Amino acid sequence: MPSHLLDDLRSFLDRDQIAASDAILDQHARGESFDQAVRPEVVAFPKSTEEVAEILRYASQHGVPVTPVAVNSSLEGHTVPLHGGISLDLARMDRILAFSPEDLLVVVQPGVTYPQVNMHTRRSGLFFPVDPGAHASIGGMIATNASGTAAVRYGVTADYVLALEVVTPSGEVIRTGSQARKSSSGYNLSRLMCGSEGTLGVITEATLRLSGLPEAAAAARVPFVTIEAATHFATAIIQAGVPVARCELVDAASIAAINTHQDTEYPVEPTIFLEFHGNGPGVEADVAVAADLAETMGATAFEASHDEASRERLWEARHNLFYALVAANPGARNITTDVAVPISKLPYAVDRALICCEREGLRAYALGHVGDGNFHLCIFYRDGPEAEAVERVSHAMVMHALESGGTATGEHGVGIRKLKYMAAEHGPALPVMQSLKRVLDPAGIMNPGKKLPD
Amino acid sequence: MPSHLLDDLRSFLDRDQIAASDAILDQHARGESFDQAVRPEVVAFPKSTEEVAEILRYASQHGVPVTPVAVNSSLEGHTVPLHGGISLDLARMDRILAFSPEDLLVVVQPGVTYPQVNMHTRRSGLFFPVDPGAHASIGGMIATNASGTAAVRYGVTADYVLALEVVTPSGEVIRTGSQARKSSSGYNLSRLMCGSEGTLGVITEATLRLSGLPEAAAAARVPFVTIEAATHFATAIIQAGVPVARCELVDAASIAAINTHQDTEYPVEPTIFLEFHGNGPGVEADVAVAADLAETMGATAFEASHDEASRERLWEARHNLFYALVAANPGARNITTDVAVPISKLPYAVDRALICCEREGLRAYALGHVGDGNFHLCIFYRDGPEAEAVERVSHAMVMHALESGGTATGEHGVGIRKLKYMAAEHGPALPVMQSLKRVLDPAGIMNPGKKLPD
Repeated sequence: MPSHLLDDLRSFLDRDQIAASDAILDQHARGESFDQAVRPEVVAFPKSTEEVAEILRYASQHGVPVTPVAVNSSLEGHTVPLHGGISLDLARMDRILAFSPEDLLVVVQPGVTYPQVNMHTRRSGLFFPVDPGAHASIGGMIATNASGTAAVRYGVTADYVLALEVVTPSGEVIRTGSQARKSSSGYNLSRLMCGSEGTLGVITEATLRLSGLPEAAAAARVPFVTIEAATHFATAIIQAGVPVARCELVDAASIAAINTHQDTEYPVEPTIFLEFHGNGPGVEADVAVAADLAETMGATAFEASHDEASRERLWEARHNLFYALVAANPGARNITTDVAVPISKLPYAVDRALICCEREGLRAYALGHVGDGNFHLCIFYRDGPEAEAVERVSHAMVMHALESGGTATGEHGVGIRKLKYMAAEHGPALPVMQSLKRVLDPAGIMNPGKKLPD
Repeated sequence: MPSHLLDDLRSFLDRDQIAASDAILDQHARGESFDQAVRPEVVAFPKSTEEVAEILRYASQHGVPVTPVAVNSSLEGHTVPLHGGISLDLARMDRILAFSPEDLLVVVQPGVTYPQVNMHTRRSGLFFPVDPGAHASIGGMIATNASGTAAVRYGVTADYVLALEVVTPSGEVIRTGSQARKSSSGYNLSRLMCGSEGTLGVITEATLRLSGLPEAAAAARVPFVTIEAATHFATAIIQAGVPVARCELVDAASIAAINTHQDTEYPVEPTIFLEFHGNGPGVEADVAVAADLAETMGATAFEASHDEASRERLWEARHNLFYALVAANPGARNITTDVAVPISKLPYAVDRALICCEREGLRAYALGHVGDGNFHLCIFYRDGPEAEAVERVSHAMVMHALESGGTATGEHGVGIRKLKYMAAEHGPALPVMQSLKRVLDPAGIMNPGKKLPD
């Protein structure tokens, strides 16, 4: 790495676009929920596509690693500059460039967060429905193909990407896709970039499809005596074809933590949270079907809520769950697992994972997007033997998910943590992926050490 | 090309799996609606993944071009063996390998058609909702990322591909994706294969996500005085967020042809055909909103139909439209254009295209998936000056679509016909696509001369 990196960057970036202070290097040394910290040599804050291109041209010529970051809400170590070099902070590329309500699309820079998109488009009756629950940046959401609570109805981030502007590792600016809602032209480079975790180039602009805000919505809280009964209900409602907009599991321990944190009095039972979107009569009918099914399957209650205020309070609880859990476990480290399995296999996968935790004496909370077969255990632990136990549980969950036809990561991405499972998950397809990486990033500068093993 | 190709193939294929008779070579020399015909040297009919792998290993070692085909309903020349070699006919790989209603998925070989999938899954209340309107094979639909009339609600073929088995050009068998409904693991090779038109490998197995059959459905026929009024209504209904399941334009000339062909008496006016899916009360409410909007926007009628028989008859008319048009133009050649534009630009794009045809004195029918901004002109012509006029109109339509932020092909794919627009549409992204082709198919054997210019 050139020792004059800082000076070189100063030749084409303003003084306030480059930082190497201890505070800023530390801030860019790690992500959320991933312990390893490695400082970059320098943090660059580009404000334009051209500046990103200049940085990448320089970096590829000099073999300098580049690690893109914006909000830094990654859970799997994506933003750790493992090999030093440049931390490319895109937070200042935060403009909404165009909004076309009549085409149901918006064009944004990568540092824009999805709540910002929704604040901007809501008044036109449109929204970006992907809702991962952190104030994630659009660039980061595309890079990990984030999804979250609404994916069961609306799909994942990639489903909303019509077009991208991407700076390739050599510093060339390309555009993928178009503003048309569908196309069979060329190879789908947009989709290749979605979920590439900053290893194939830098996303500098995204054209996103929007959905119409539902005319009506309802929410329901459906507690059960056992977690098996709750997950069986979740899979049954999907199998019955009820078009739920959200279908979330929150286990009893999490409900207790929410009650403490938010001063609520939800019954401390494993609970499925549902949301329904549509027109008024359609939503009523969906709620009725869900209520019937819940009763048949042994729910201890079915509390539906139609007014916006109570609906939002209910979902606020789910969104703030992570903070409630952290508050309930002061001083402990935490890890959030992220497997997804075919939905019929979800009840057993959750049950098995919790038993593994019990066997290890670990304190775990089960939650997640059970309508998609994707669930998380949030495990709190302390360094030492507990950390090793967490690793055993996490490993057992991934191997079980793969044996069940599932995936090591439903939505958080591979980052560093899941690298070791790529060979098992992808088999002979892994060398094909590695060949794509080599041809698209021959200098190997883009986020090295992430997404794919070397 | 080895002169002993036929003998070599006989060493690992049965006698009835290889054909080189004039009739079969001619049958594999061209697709539908694309005039150029080139005979392959031999047609191979593999029955298993391992046989496909053996053929590709042989072909890559000997530099023999391989052109995959099954139903051969391609409109853009995808299946023409431009450089001879092997026409790889996958029609005998036509088994449904697994059906898991509880996971809402089905596993099929590439030669299975989508109506066969639906016949198999319907009794479990599930269906594969992509409906391109020809009895296309699943392999071909994935290869072109086909879509059709239901894409406005349900999305395109790629949205239903959970996992693929692919034989790479060198004859290696890889698996992409998983049975989980979402994943952020590895690069998305499934999506790269979708729409790759047989240029990156051969799809030998597909795991498809299914949807629940809607509990209720309704259809509506909404005629207008002018085609502009009809297309404005179609875009308005999308912009209003009404979740139509289908939204099709059929122009007045096409209605006349349908009436003749089917012995119906639809008013000869530009017409929007709508379909609504959901629960009973929800569909009623959607139909009411659509009827209000239609009245406001000057529809001359709004005929809704709720019973299955009349709904199917209405859609049968749309499905058989192409045959009605052919019957109305005996002896003429035809071409079907396929641009897609951002939806607000659809009314002008259709109007402009029809004016171009009038100026050239061409007989054209306008139809298509206007809810997606994707429309077709079906133009009938004779060899000579008319053929040149068709080329001018088609060219003008593509260039206008690209200038409007759209695409040269909304759903039919590039094939041979759209090759010349790839540089204009993709710019600096084209060399990136070409680099992927070179690394994944270094011998250049897979469907050469299609999808991307050399």
